[in-house]
Amino acid sequence: MRIEELREITQEIKPVSPGWIGKAYTRLDSLTKPRRSLGYMEEIAARYVAIRQEEKPKIGKKRVFVFVGDHRVVEEGVSAYPAEVTGLMVKNFVVGGAAINVLARRADAGVEVIDIGMATDSAGLQGVVRLNVKRGADNIAKGPAMTLEEALKAIEVGITRATRASDEGVTLAGTGDMGIGNSTPAAALFASYLGMRASKLVGPGTGLDAKGVALKTRVVKRALRVNKRRCTGPIETLAALGGLEIAGICGLCLGAASRRMAVVVDGFISTAGALAAIRICPACKDYMFFAHRSAEPGHKKFFEKEGLRPILDLGMRLGEGTGAAIAMQIIEDAMAIYNEMATFADAGITPGA
Amino acid sequence: MRIEELREITQEIKPVSPGWIGKAYTRLDSLTKPRRSLGYMEEIAARYVAIRQEEKPKIGKKRVFVFVGDHRVVEEGVSAYPAEVTGLMVKNFVVGGAAINVLARRADAGVEVIDIGMATDSAGLQGVVRLNVKRGADNIAKGPAMTLEEALKAIEVGITRATRASDEGVTLAGTGDMGIGNSTPAAALFASYLGMRASKLVGPGTGLDAKGVALKTRVVKRALRVNKRRCTGPIETLAALGGLEIAGICGLCLGAASRRMAVVVDGFISTAGALAAIRICPACKDYMFFAHRSAEPGHKKFFEKEGLRPILDLGMRLGEGTGAAIAMQIIEDAMAIYNEMATFADAGITPGA
Repeated sequence: MRIEELREITQEIKPVSPGWIGKAYTRLDSLTKPRRSLGYMEEIAARYVAIRQEEKPKIGKKRVFVFVGDHRVVEEGVSAYPAEVTGLMVKNFVVGGAAINVLARRADAGVEVIDIGMATDSAGLQGVVRLNVKRGADNIAKGPAMTLEEALKAIEVGITRATRASDEGVTLAGTGDMGIGNSTPAAALFASYLGMRASKLVGPGTGLDAKGVALKTRVVKRALRVNKRRCTGPIETLAALGGLEIAGICGLCLGAASRRMAVVVDGFISTAGALAAIRICPACKDYMFFAHRSAEPGHKKFFEKEGLRPILDLGMRLGEGTGAAIAMQIIEDAMAIYNEMATFADAGITPGA
Repeated sequence: MRIEELREITQEIKPVSPGWIGKAYTRLDSLTKPRRSLGYMEEIAARYVAIRQEEKPKIGKKRVFVFVGDHRVVEEGVSAYPAEVTGLMVKNFVVGGAAINVLARRADAGVEVIDIGMATDSAGLQGVVRLNVKRGADNIAKGPAMTLEEALKAIEVGITRATRASDEGVTLAGTGDMGIGNSTPAAALFASYLGMRASKLVGPGTGLDAKGVALKTRVVKRALRVNKRRCTGPIETLAALGGLEIAGICGLCLGAASRRMAVVVDGFISTAGALAAIRICPACKDYMFFAHRSAEPGHKKFFEKEGLRPILDLGMRLGEGTGAAIAMQIIEDAMAIYNEMATFADAGITPGA
């Protein structure tokens, strides 16, 4: 995908219309409950209506997209787990034993596992969508994670997964990630996109101790320094500091918005991809729901800086799309309220205040 | 029910055992995820295991109990809705058009609507469990809401609903309330049980403006003054300042704990009943999950003072058990994680940090 082709897609993405939000609230205010008494649930419903541009939109198929990529920055000792775990966890996804499998079943959502940047060959892993762009992101402490061409290719993979899912009837997508070491590039991306210091954004990831966090902070600082001159725009920054799976998630968010499909952004890693998408195309923010506030401390900074809010705050820090799968159920609850409740007129009640 | 009989029941309730919590974490730590990376979800699962005292407990039947009662304190102008709405909403529950019906369907939970204190006759409302103790609580701004005997009778109704449900295979109960005016007695109960000023606990309820909140605060202050000498113990306080549905919820919490049934406490009103249960029998707290933080500002004070946390924080303020129905799904998610995920041994992965 050339950058001009990407621009063509993003130019088509428009913010949701206040007219549709207003229409949705007219219905919500007619339902048998005190006005706005379901709080954020009503905001979720109104926005889903505006995304879909339908009077009474149903939730269609649901799917969680787990983008998998490796990171050579693990050479610097930034992760509590060895790099091999990426491949072992993909095997676990394929047999249905991981947290995302369990939670997606509960949400009645499909799981699509995409090898977009695994270091090892995924040929033997049945069920994995094999669209490997590069065998692992390069060590960001020493240079760029990938070239601009590779980043665009990874974004394109994400866009294509979204548009294909939309064609298949998916109306609610969830983002997910797997990649040992990926909280390091995510923190670097947040630092760059939010204009904040690395020390505010680096956390323990899958389980580093204080010493490990200090080391990781130094690595992120080095990555920012080494790649500084490459970070000339949002896509360039994603290429320099990101990872293949993060670029895939960015693409999924853009592709979803281009098809008026709602996308539930999972935790810290996914949000880095979503933020890249927002920086590339600010309007796509309206198509995103943020599933949860991760226990990774930098995630809170993102919400504060961008003026956004998560649906859940359960102290989770697993990734894989687990938060997205839980939040999908709440979005479906909100739409059930919207579509199924009786109105005051039905119930013969005069609305109060 | 005599007070001695109630004591017999509460004396049987023991805190959950640390041994069972430990056993649950041994399993949780063996699952294919970084240790404790599912945060509060793991705490939920561990506590459910300890409540049920089973190695791999399933969630059995789920049921939301909506206790309905009226409040003569509405004479003081404390509610945005007229008292007749209580009966109209019960009709709405019966035909399945209310928010709780929609959300309980989503959670695959039954809904039991109990006339425990409606001012009007519920004879014509098919499907309502008719156990009316009193035709509405008396005006707490002028005297006690009910006698001690009436309060004990209402608590007994709640206990009996819980034990009956347990016999029928319910393992997860949700509390719910309906009663125009009931955020006034709830605020009075919080003030008394938490030892806090009324002004910190009174909020807009279903939709009062600032003037309405000021009036309501004066009414709660008057209720506290008028009933001061009656508030000699937790049950006496509940009788003086509470309401029939709040006492029923208190009983449900006690009955659930006595049967090792988990109970999901809904919002502001339900929490007042749950707090009465905690004051009567502190050990029953271990059997409670708090569904959400209500938008009613006093609810936050409760969580702070008691050192407890809600599962959700969605700005809801509807009652009926709506928050409980949403939170039940998350508890079921947590138990699916606990029961269905692969272990590290299954997946051939060596656990990291």
